[in-house]
Amino acid sequence: MIRMELQVHFLPHLTTPDDLAGATVVVIDVLRATTTIVHALAAGATLVVPCLEVDEARQIAARLGADAVLGGERGGRRINGFHLGNSPAEYTPQTVGGKTVVFTTTNGTRAMLLCARAKRVLLGAFVNLSAVCGAVREEPVVHLLCAGTDGEITREDALFAGAVADELAQGREPASLRLNDQAEIAADAWRTASGNLAAGTLLTSAFRNSRGGRNLVEIGHEEDLDIAAMIDRFDFVPHLDTQSRHIKK
Amino acid sequence: MIRMELQVHFLPHLTTPDDLAGATVVVIDVLRATTTIVHALAAGATLVVPCLEVDEARQIAARLGADAVLGGERGGRRINGFHLGNSPAEYTPQTVGGKTVVFTTTNGTRAMLLCARAKRVLLGAFVNLSAVCGAVREEPVVHLLCAGTDGEITREDALFAGAVADELAQGREPASLRLNDQAEIAADAWRTASGNLAAGTLLTSAFRNSRGGRNLVEIGHEEDLDIAAMIDRFDFVPHLDTQSRHIKK
Repeated sequence: MIRMELQVHFLPHLTTPDDLAGATVVVIDVLRATTTIVHALAAGATLVVPCLEVDEARQIAARLGADAVLGGERGGRRINGFHLGNSPAEYTPQTVGGKTVVFTTTNGTRAMLLCARAKRVLLGAFVNLSAVCGAVREEPVVHLLCAGTDGEITREDALFAGAVADELAQGREPASLRLNDQAEIAADAWRTASGNLAAGTLLTSAFRNSRGGRNLVEIGHEEDLDIAAMIDRFDFVPHLDTQSRHIKK
Repeated sequence: MIRMELQVHFLPHLTTPDDLAGATVVVIDVLRATTTIVHALAAGATLVVPCLEVDEARQIAARLGADAVLGGERGGRRINGFHLGNSPAEYTPQTVGGKTVVFTTTNGTRAMLLCARAKRVLLGAFVNLSAVCGAVREEPVVHLLCAGTDGEITREDALFAGAVADELAQGREPASLRLNDQAEIAADAWRTASGNLAAGTLLTSAFRNSRGGRNLVEIGHEEDLDIAAMIDRFDFVPHLDTQSRHIKK
């Protein structure tokens, strides 16, 4: 008997809001939106509001006044007039503690907007891998939605999806879990990568030659790869309320 | 110095004719179009003409008269009035020897039509894996184009792409080969699968729980999975001439 249906989508446009309706969705943008949002909430931000457009982010922040911190990126770089970029290390108790972070990135935010009719929307990255697995373990239908980079599939998101699929498959009757083909591909890819980790290769070396990783190295954000590779640094899962568009612990 | 750029595309719509222009492209539809076309040419068919539409296939076959054999499928099943379906085992010296096979399948043919401006278009499947690797080894730009099934990524095509990527990476300086992220994901997925093969698991077990494989089992074509899994049964590579639309040995 199938007890869980687990679907991986390597890009937002490989699924639809209809597919995701009523399900639990984990949005994944390892480099860097979901990694950074986990850091922001861990550092004491009250909530995070994801925005697709820069102007919208500015308007929401203006309404909130001194309670708001503007964060995000375009082309990997901090936006003109914003307080913070999209590097996890910038999100500290000093910069965001007790504040609302109004946050705009293209890939991660676009993926979140696809989840308007999902039952639960969670944010996942390697920094909260085990917490994500724990949060979805009993759900009947789980979608792992990779943000990708500028419409292209990225390795780090696929590896994270594979890590979750592999973990959820452990100790389960194979017949009780139905994976789509992308979930099988991702889980197999993660098994090779995790074997390499056991042999001493760092996860950052997989990130470094991914498209997203190369971009970050080129613009001087190489340290973000090390931060994004810190598996289970945090033990909570951010939730997106699709009505209010608030992301909270 | 980069000597080869290798790009995997998990679906036709993840690339464009512009991306493929001037390059060597390997079209992959393991279950079953490219497997079956290799079988047809191995059985002595003079050439294979791929058609997107059933009516077009009928017209071309009518023009050729007794020299033509109509083959192909819709929904996995033989088309009304066609001589042959899309099972490799149907393509024997008795059925296709010395004939032109006018062939229509949706997924594989659609992928081929995307290659109108490619330099070379080859057809690959597990049955001619090593021959494909040998044919592209010295090319500067290689695209591995997975057909998928009805617009969805399929595991067997991704595993074949990964097998080619893994083989081309062997014995090469890592810096001399640039892979896109899909190629890295596919190669890692194949490394897990090939480790399982070494441990005695059959490739057909990976096919059996893929979307395409489940469809074939449901409609009674399970034996095609075993045939598609016969690695290196043949040692040649079919070429598609995009002008004449002829596929030959």
